[in-house]
Amino acid sequence: MAKRTGLYTVELEKKPRIIGNAAIMGKKEGEGPFGSEFDEILKDTTAGEDSWEKAESIFLQSAIKKALSKAAVSPGEVNALFSGDLLNQCMGSSFAVRELSIPFAAVYGACSTMALSLIIASLAIESGGFDCTVAATSSHFCSAEKQFRLPLEYGGQRPPSAQWTVTGAGAAVLRDVPSPLSPYIDKVHIGTITDYNITDTNNMGAAMAPAASKTIHDFLEDTQTAPSDYDLILTGDLGFVGSELLRQLMVREYSTDISFVHNDCGMMIFDREKQDVHSGGSGCGCSAGILCSYIINSMRKGKLKNVLFVATGALLSSVSSLQGESIPGVAHAVLIKGGCDR
Amino acid sequence: MAKRTGLYTVELEKKPRIIGNAAIMGKKEGEGPFGSEFDEILKDTTAGEDSWEKAESIFLQSAIKKALSKAAVSPGEVNALFSGDLLNQCMGSSFAVRELSIPFAAVYGACSTMALSLIIASLAIESGGFDCTVAATSSHFCSAEKQFRLPLEYGGQRPPSAQWTVTGAGAAVLRDVPSPLSPYIDKVHIGTITDYNITDTNNMGAAMAPAASKTIHDFLEDTQTAPSDYDLILTGDLGFVGSELLRQLMVREYSTDISFVHNDCGMMIFDREKQDVHSGGSGCGCSAGILCSYIINSMRKGKLKNVLFVATGALLSSVSSLQGESIPGVAHAVLIKGGCDR
Repeated sequence: MAKRTGLYTVELEKKPRIIGNAAIMGKKEGEGPFGSEFDEILKDTTAGEDSWEKAESIFLQSAIKKALSKAAVSPGEVNALFSGDLLNQCMGSSFAVRELSIPFAAVYGACSTMALSLIIASLAIESGGFDCTVAATSSHFCSAEKQFRLPLEYGGQRPPSAQWTVTGAGAAVLRDVPSPLSPYIDKVHIGTITDYNITDTNNMGAAMAPAASKTIHDFLEDTQTAPSDYDLILTGDLGFVGSELLRQLMVREYSTDISFVHNDCGMMIFDREKQDVHSGGSGCGCSAGILCSYIINSMRKGKLKNVLFVATGALLSSVSSLQGESIPGVAHAVLIKGGCDR
Repeated sequence: MAKRTGLYTVELEKKPRIIGNAAIMGKKEGEGPFGSEFDEILKDTTAGEDSWEKAESIFLQSAIKKALSKAAVSPGEVNALFSGDLLNQCMGSSFAVRELSIPFAAVYGACSTMALSLIIASLAIESGGFDCTVAATSSHFCSAEKQFRLPLEYGGQRPPSAQWTVTGAGAAVLRDVPSPLSPYIDKVHIGTITDYNITDTNNMGAAMAPAASKTIHDFLEDTQTAPSDYDLILTGDLGFVGSELLRQLMVREYSTDISFVHNDCGMMIFDREKQDVHSGGSGCGCSAGILCSYIINSMRKGKLKNVLFVATGALLSSVSSLQGESIPGVAHAVLIKGGCDR
């Protein structure tokens, strides 16, 4: 039975294992520093489909299938799949899952969705009623630009604080089994919305940094730990601008320095020098892609043993911004541990 | 600890109690047969806001606050709130929850969202890490028409199979406490997507009926029960066309007659004779409004003791339909029991 640690954090007893993980990414992502970590790179970002939205579903479905295959689990063994994406009504996920015959629930956390799906997939196992669950998410540069910004054909200019939506999908298969080499979910933490009145939709990092700051602080306080207790505090997808703001906020608001142990999926996924994406990567597929490849793979190899994964989301829509609303941010945290110390 | 009953159904051990429930509904809904059951009727469906989307958030926030107040629970006592809605990126929920300082996760199940939020809120409690959770959802006729169909000002004609999106919101507060007069969540069941290749977005009932049929059948088979074992099998929001199809499908595919115990929130919420809404009500707020008022209130009074709530969702978006996709349907089930037999 899970137990609450502090105000917001829940320590799991079952410690669901990540027995399979996969990242299926686009061409540009494949050319970045983690290209060799991804399970597959679809050089044709249409994935052979006639729309970007359908292409995104193919990325996501491929990631789910690959993760299941690596876990040696058939779709029929999965008790529930939790996935969401940036597309209106989470259509990327619905159409990806449609043919899989797996009980399906969509979750929405914008770019925090990988953490949110992991949390709910873990709680389902922890409840005792679910043996095997899948957590997944996706994003696609072209479907996101089309939906949130401008038609790609316009070739619109982007300001330096803008981030580049990652094309790709990640999936993780969780199961309540002894599997010493698989990392496990140790603690989960559902975030609370923060809103510092940021209205610039080309500066999502600034909108989400306060949420990351609050969640990391709350998690550390709840667990009575310090940044030095972790191998890595990994935020997803603050990018360069947001990460700098996060580090400053942690010092100013909580007198906590995380810079020596912090990295951000949005800063990692592209090569800042060679791939000009301004403030870095974003989109659900960014943190999902990094987590479900390099991070979990490194944990399997024992290179990382203790990763606090804090995915951040900007809970706006095109409509809310056009109506003058500021951008609410949220950050959900998952403590993933590796090794055999279960 | 919860345990799996059959392939898809999970029996909860903690039996989380619904200690507070509220429905805040619009003018037209207030004029329907259940008007006197609702906690509040906002006759001004703008709720004093300058957009329909902001108005929807007010309905939802009011329902959450009212349910908490009736449960005598402060927002600070709530460990997590699960809510979603039809608006792009679930903005109705994000902006409703923003000021409440409650850990928040959005879920998306289209019109099935009330069941989905109840399921996840229940599993969180069942995990042991959450003492008190809230499940909620909303819809608004005007924000939905604007987003999914046509500007209201066009006065577009609707075919007889079309349903009318309900303006309103429902919320339920769950807690792991002895509270004999409060109904409790006995079993939960996450549905699997079905797609019978329906492409008519003006006939959502037809798109969702096969999902409801599968979920009800699976639930009965999992639990080795018959329709006569329930006081009510309540689908949400198949409307008149979809409900007729559901009853026929249950007979044809599974030789099961549910007609004597079945009702549908979409058939209940408006007066078919006096309020011309064609095939009935729809939208997340429809089943949420009926469940979180009349149904739970009747259970508190002992008039209903055993309700299988099966909310249905059509997992399409405007884009998927324009791209020629058929409409995937899903139905999630929650068995709610009342009385003192915990």
